[in-house]
Amino acid sequence: MTAHAPALAVAVLVYDQVEELDFVGPYETFQVAGQQSTDLFGRPDPAFTVFTVAETTDLLRTRGGLLVRPHHSFTDHPPVDVVVLPGGDATGQSGRPAVLDWLRGVVASTTLTTSVCTGAFLLGALGLLDGQPATTHASALDDLAATYPAVDVRRGVRWVEAGRIITSAGISAGIDMSLYAVSRLFGEELALRTAAYLEYDWHRDPVRR
Amino acid sequence: MTAHAPALAVAVLVYDQVEELDFVGPYETFQVAGQQSTDLFGRPDPAFTVFTVAETTDLLRTRGGLLVRPHHSFTDHPPVDVVVLPGGDATGQSGRPAVLDWLRGVVASTTLTTSVCTGAFLLGALGLLDGQPATTHASALDDLAATYPAVDVRRGVRWVEAGRIITSAGISAGIDMSLYAVSRLFGEELALRTAAYLEYDWHRDPVRR
Repeated sequence: MTAHAPALAVAVLVYDQVEELDFVGPYETFQVAGQQSTDLFGRPDPAFTVFTVAETTDLLRTRGGLLVRPHHSFTDHPPVDVVVLPGGDATGQSGRPAVLDWLRGVVASTTLTTSVCTGAFLLGALGLLDGQPATTHASALDDLAATYPAVDVRRGVRWVEAGRIITSAGISAGIDMSLYAVSRLFGEELALRTAAYLEYDWHRDPVRR
Repeated sequence: MTAHAPALAVAVLVYDQVEELDFVGPYETFQVAGQQSTDLFGRPDPAFTVFTVAETTDLLRTRGGLLVRPHHSFTDHPPVDVVVLPGGDATGQSGRPAVLDWLRGVVASTTLTTSVCTGAFLLGALGLLDGQPATTHASALDDLAATYPAVDVRRGVRWVEAGRIITSAGISAGIDMSLYAVSRLFGEELALRTAAYLEYDWHRDPVRR
């Protein structure tokens, strides 16, 4: 991918009882990376466009009670290059055929498929983590290993990369993972500028907690 | 304040073009602190209740395009103990009499008044920072000093405390400031547990960037 590659569409899944910082951390990170990319690369358009997607566009309530209206529904959204699967009640979502059917279709053609916190359970439910290294929120590591025994669950990491899939640890680790995704897609300088604008101390080494 | 003190109501201001992580970082931090407080202190109720407030409850669009419906309007919200003023287009808001009139009334009785990023401009517009140390996003420090010359603008800090007012640096620094506020109100152990749940490396020393 080069600095002048076409913009990538980032779809952030939202649902009732989604953990708000799980999805807003990546949302903000990719948005700011898009803004910074026009300055850094002299692009006419941001390198990322970002939107939320849910089963319907009805107003939903996050775990902490924020009221959010999704931009798009499962049946009416632009093509997706990068998908972000946040946690919260992701285990509940992982039992819902409508969600799994949508996700199976989307991940078939993404450049990157990412999860934050318990969002990894959605990937586990599709079998996408079988035989692969993956991580989740510290409090859910044992549950991930018990629910999906074929997954190589990693502890003490901020994120884990397995080909086109990146899973991250809990809540704020989604920001570190997103910065890494920006770096992988458009280079480290864009990720560093994005972290500087966010005034965020990026964990560039995923093994450091 | 003791572990069994009455719950504190945290009002998070939102408005069109608010920076999404500026307000969701503190929102999530106080929410999680509330959850953790019941376990840590054996309280029957969370130590914090958190809500968003705006001029009206109409759906609004954050700077990055998220669609959010505020819980309460300026004319119909519960009493406020802690107010959070996020950045984004806060300089635009600081020229709006409806916002300043509301804020003047609220800060008269808050336990803590806090800002994130350019939210400090709202406090500056009310003269509340005159002769006080304060900070904002790195890119707005010069502008804050030029717009409100009586403010003692501090650089290279995550947050600055001045009595009942705490201003923080840009975007993610709002999480550090909120953790400090939790610590000040209910003790450091609650703040540490909250940071652990968020998997966030809290900058406990405000001077470290």
